[in-house]
Amino acid sequence: MTGTSPDPSTDPVKTIAFVLYPGLTPLDIVGPLQVFAALADLVPGYRTVVVGERIEPMPSDTPLSLVPSHTFDGIPDPHALIVPGGLVPTLAAMADESLLRNLRETAARSRVVGSVCTGSLLLAAAGLLEGRQATTHWMYRDLLPRFGATPVTRRWVEDGHVITAAGVSAGIDMALHLVGRLAGHDVARTVQLFIEYDPEPPFGAIDWTAAGAGQYAPFARQLLDTALSDHPDLLARLTS
Amino acid sequence: MTGTSPDPSTDPVKTIAFVLYPGLTPLDIVGPLQVFAALADLVPGYRTVVVGERIEPMPSDTPLSLVPSHTFDGIPDPHALIVPGGLVPTLAAMADESLLRNLRETAARSRVVGSVCTGSLLLAAAGLLEGRQATTHWMYRDLLPRFGATPVTRRWVEDGHVITAAGVSAGIDMALHLVGRLAGHDVARTVQLFIEYDPEPPFGAIDWTAAGAGQYAPFARQLLDTALSDHPDLLARLTS
Repeated sequence: MTGTSPDPSTDPVKTIAFVLYPGLTPLDIVGPLQVFAALADLVPGYRTVVVGERIEPMPSDTPLSLVPSHTFDGIPDPHALIVPGGLVPTLAAMADESLLRNLRETAARSRVVGSVCTGSLLLAAAGLLEGRQATTHWMYRDLLPRFGATPVTRRWVEDGHVITAAGVSAGIDMALHLVGRLAGHDVARTVQLFIEYDPEPPFGAIDWTAAGAGQYAPFARQLLDTALSDHPDLLARLTS
Repeated sequence: MTGTSPDPSTDPVKTIAFVLYPGLTPLDIVGPLQVFAALADLVPGYRTVVVGERIEPMPSDTPLSLVPSHTFDGIPDPHALIVPGGLVPTLAAMADESLLRNLRETAARSRVVGSVCTGSLLLAAAGLLEGRQATTHWMYRDLLPRFGATPVTRRWVEDGHVITAAGVSAGIDMALHLVGRLAGHDVARTVQLFIEYDPEPPFGAIDWTAAGAGQYAPFARQLLDTALSDHPDLLARLTS
């Protein structure tokens, strides 16, 4: 806690902080952000913020650019800190000491620390998943043990105050679970109604047996090589 | 088609254009955008663009601001034009003649015209749903007949070249359906795998009988009154 942060005991509003950094997958952040923004609209006492290292447009892995609302030193102690993921830019951010330091310091001031998709690899690189069960995008689940975490194949995984979600769209499910715990199941169901989250995947659920996820291992490795080409030590640690 | 647009017969790349305007619900645009961005990453011949009236940061109904990649006159004839929705700002945009003219003109150059959530009300206000079956966010389904459309209670509704999705998260399902039609079911399943869209709503599907959606009618009306306070004629047409 820093001297400039509001004292949580006199600030009853719970802040849910979402981390934004260049190149991320926008659905990773927008899915759970929309869930918590609906909570804040429906129930007093919650607010969402989007926190980045600079308040300026940041590219994503789509043609959309995104602008955060706050910098890391401009937010109160968050109730929850949520870190979204992505592909090459997220993998490269595992070596971004400035971002990792901001994650570490803000996580230390947060009651709940969460991630979506490969956002968990940033928590891991910041040292926050050591000795914990966690999940991530299926393509990179096998990296988690390299950081001392135990990979688990579930939609979301809670271990103590740390919660990690599977790939991309899993952040919506994780956020509804967190809203249910924070504000009760009825409120969570109302949030679900407002975002009309009544999924009907047109080709059904993922058939993990037929999907042949293993065939993408060389592709996953190629992205990792590209992302960490300037950081051979980290690359070796993750792949040797 | 304008003189500056690429000739589709010599431009084999199919452009999927997503409309951005101030105050929208970001999940409405980001859900289907992420689906089509994954298609563009996986299969040659597709590109996504985010089109707005100005290339500048626009607020959303969350603390996140969003920046489009193109203006309306800067995109080629789109294969598909997708219009996202929102609450008060979207309802107010039903009276935004400049935006409606841009939608009308771009829709006339598009093979497929689609919407997510109350984005269908913008298509309707632009005169594009007359005589068609359509859907929208459950809170505003009863406005569709005021524009000559027939409301349908489904996750997404196709009528000719027009496809409309239900509220917010329904855009993901609609986009996967469109990808399946454009590029085949196997490609759509691969996109689904990459965004790990294997939904597990923690409290199950929406129970429409228990949800008591009718209780929100006064709230929906209040938002509409706020949005159209400067446009009493349109308000009267929609509510009398």
